[in-house]
Amino acid sequence: MFIVRAQYLITMNKKDEVIENGAVVVEDGRIKDIAEFTEILKKYKDPSIPIYGNSHSALMPGFINTHTHAAMVLFRGIADDLPLKQWLTEHIWPREAKFLSHEFVYDGTLLASLEMLKSGTTTFNDMYFFTESVADAAKKLGIRAVIGQGVLDFPTASGNGADDYLKKAKEFIEKYGSDELIIPAVAPHAIYTCSRETLIKSKEFALKNRVPIHIHLSETFHEVEECIKEHGKRPVKYLDEIGFLEGRIIAAHSVWLDDEEMEIMAERGIGVSHCIESNLKLSSGVAPVARMIKKGVKVSMGTDGAASNNNLDLLEEIAIAAKVQKGITADPTVLDVKTSMKMLTVWAAESLGIENETGSIEIGKKADMILINLRKPHLQPVYDIYSTIIYSAKASDIEDVFVNGVPVIINGRHQFVDEDEIIDKALWWAERIKSS
Amino acid sequence: MFIVRAQYLITMNKKDEVIENGAVVVEDGRIKDIAEFTEILKKYKDPSIPIYGNSHSALMPGFINTHTHAAMVLFRGIADDLPLKQWLTEHIWPREAKFLSHEFVYDGTLLASLEMLKSGTTTFNDMYFFTESVADAAKKLGIRAVIGQGVLDFPTASGNGADDYLKKAKEFIEKYGSDELIIPAVAPHAIYTCSRETLIKSKEFALKNRVPIHIHLSETFHEVEECIKEHGKRPVKYLDEIGFLEGRIIAAHSVWLDDEEMEIMAERGIGVSHCIESNLKLSSGVAPVARMIKKGVKVSMGTDGAASNNNLDLLEEIAIAAKVQKGITADPTVLDVKTSMKMLTVWAAESLGIENETGSIEIGKKADMILINLRKPHLQPVYDIYSTIIYSAKASDIEDVFVNGVPVIINGRHQFVDEDEIIDKALWWAERIKSS
Repeated sequence: MFIVRAQYLITMNKKDEVIENGAVVVEDGRIKDIAEFTEILKKYKDPSIPIYGNSHSALMPGFINTHTHAAMVLFRGIADDLPLKQWLTEHIWPREAKFLSHEFVYDGTLLASLEMLKSGTTTFNDMYFFTESVADAAKKLGIRAVIGQGVLDFPTASGNGADDYLKKAKEFIEKYGSDELIIPAVAPHAIYTCSRETLIKSKEFALKNRVPIHIHLSETFHEVEECIKEHGKRPVKYLDEIGFLEGRIIAAHSVWLDDEEMEIMAERGIGVSHCIESNLKLSSGVAPVARMIKKGVKVSMGTDGAASNNNLDLLEEIAIAAKVQKGITADPTVLDVKTSMKMLTVWAAESLGIENETGSIEIGKKADMILINLRKPHLQPVYDIYSTIIYSAKASDIEDVFVNGVPVIINGRHQFVDEDEIIDKALWWAERIKSS
Repeated sequence: MFIVRAQYLITMNKKDEVIENGAVVVEDGRIKDIAEFTEILKKYKDPSIPIYGNSHSALMPGFINTHTHAAMVLFRGIADDLPLKQWLTEHIWPREAKFLSHEFVYDGTLLASLEMLKSGTTTFNDMYFFTESVADAAKKLGIRAVIGQGVLDFPTASGNGADDYLKKAKEFIEKYGSDELIIPAVAPHAIYTCSRETLIKSKEFALKNRVPIHIHLSETFHEVEECIKEHGKRPVKYLDEIGFLEGRIIAAHSVWLDDEEMEIMAERGIGVSHCIESNLKLSSGVAPVARMIKKGVKVSMGTDGAASNNNLDLLEEIAIAAKVQKGITADPTVLDVKTSMKMLTVWAAESLGIENETGSIEIGKKADMILINLRKPHLQPVYDIYSTIIYSAKASDIEDVFVNGVPVIINGRHQFVDEDEIIDKALWWAERIKSS
């Protein structure tokens, strides 16, 4: 059992409660009590209970990254300022073909998980291959992960085709389905890489095994044009028509949606993972997020892989998203600070179907929480704590991170792995990749 | 005398040289020598010479913030997600009217300078009032500052009208004109707050006293419409026609320029301070930066005041600017990492007329430099050091800052002020402002 106190306890519960000078009691991985710090002290008198936090901090739910390819951190900054096609075909795919392996994914996911934890992310939603290696790395670092086995119609280093990928997904569920930190998922890559048959098989697999679906959707204008050419309709309408839009689905990017598509997504409860930095950097476009939200679509934030971002920092992601939406809609009231906070936490949890376990600070939920040190020149004064976090705070202000009730990062350091070893392994990979 | 070594010494000189395992020798505030570290060690053998830096860091010129109102940090986050007019008239102006004073400006500029130094800014270009207090705060913190006396046609707490502001500007030059860290400037606020006569007087003042001009230009579409209504032409053409565009001028914002205006600005050598975060957050629009650069306009980065940003972090500013330009032009090659680095350093120095003193690491220049610690999970691997800095690095990775040859920030701490005292003073102001 331990206590975490803060100047501002931001619950993100249904009433958006913020408790000044509040505290949380954590026991067996879950939140046992929430109240003002003085009350908590009266109720839990045992002086041996550890207390984290102080009177100049904010405590809030950990961030949830709803779209990434974690292991791609090993390609961070290897090729920038290029058109998407050239970037993929000349730089990323040839290197993936050469290096993708259990070891690459494991070492890459270690580095990514360390970066994510240190920037306040307590859950990430991954789409990649060698899912056991993703899971092993996430578990080693102590971060919660929704891990989607990539499904494609063609073979890669990790499988021979759709049926083989789905077989791997099944094996993954069997091995990790009851893990405390791992939530298996299935990830049909995209409309342009999965046949109608593969998409339907993936959906049926997800329904049968009760796992979420993670898919790329309408990232580029070109992709929408191709879909219309091949299937006679826009992507969301095509997916709806073939009966794909059932169950818990998170659609990454969703840059090019028309109004009717947004309405279908809202009706079917499809979540959108908005990846503004990757979409801008690759010139893919700007998703109509303010309009999606108005129409009832649940939008959350994803960083995409670090090869197109080039970091996994969700505070940076939301600060850009909130500002860009104001800029392109000419309406400064959209993506206000409360909406932005929901996109990072509760809405993300709902999109992934884990809202009963994480995404807010409420009694009974898993203790996935972060402490932000407010005593920094760039964070003062604090007039509105939501504003301070969304518009002023940085990843480095998040000094303590708790996942599943475990203090994982304290004073900015990981508590049970050797950070240097993880960085050195990344340097070793970089040397191999550079000289290839 | 001291030595600073780094894994990557990024000079930002005319040849864009990056010296791996390089070092700089600093003496009497200036850069005395630049070479590989091993060579420097052979040449400067005295073991008592202090050595900063290490083998996993990047050394580069300090950033230059070309548009801010530093003291406004005291209003950070006081009102967000509002239309510009409501924000200004209901929140900012009434509070400025109530609190603007020498003390407010001094304490605010202390906090702002601390934030700027800790995020790698070694020079800022300020436009505000009570310029002596700005200068005193900047000098106390050890940051270089171009300080523009605001000039308006109407009275404020700090002056009675245009002639009075210009008188103050003259007094400021007399007092601080030969200071090591302070560069006086004159800052006619904008076309809509300065008559033609005031603009011309300001320009003549600048030419006569050899100081730069700092002005707000075409920040909003409304402003351009008003100019056309009142003066029969767009802002840049109006300024050109009245003979204002002479000398060293930096135009903040410049969001709404047409091609002809960009060409005039390029021809007259007018610098633009691009303030993307403020422009997005207030829904002012997105400046056509890629197009300006193509036409030969020198563009640099400004944070604007923290009341509309809400921080003074130039690394965040450029990361957003570079990505937004790619997004809105649909061309991922614009604002590439080299261009972005120039916008933060050499181009900014040229725009302010201080390129002989700062903006690059070259022998004879003032030692305004920053050291970035690369041994962080979000910065590895490094395939291209420019990319690592522009797309992955954060303010908090800048751990050592040298201004005018003085080690001001070492290991993230200011070396000669009490940071807590500065923060506490800001808290004191916030209490007064909240209860007003």
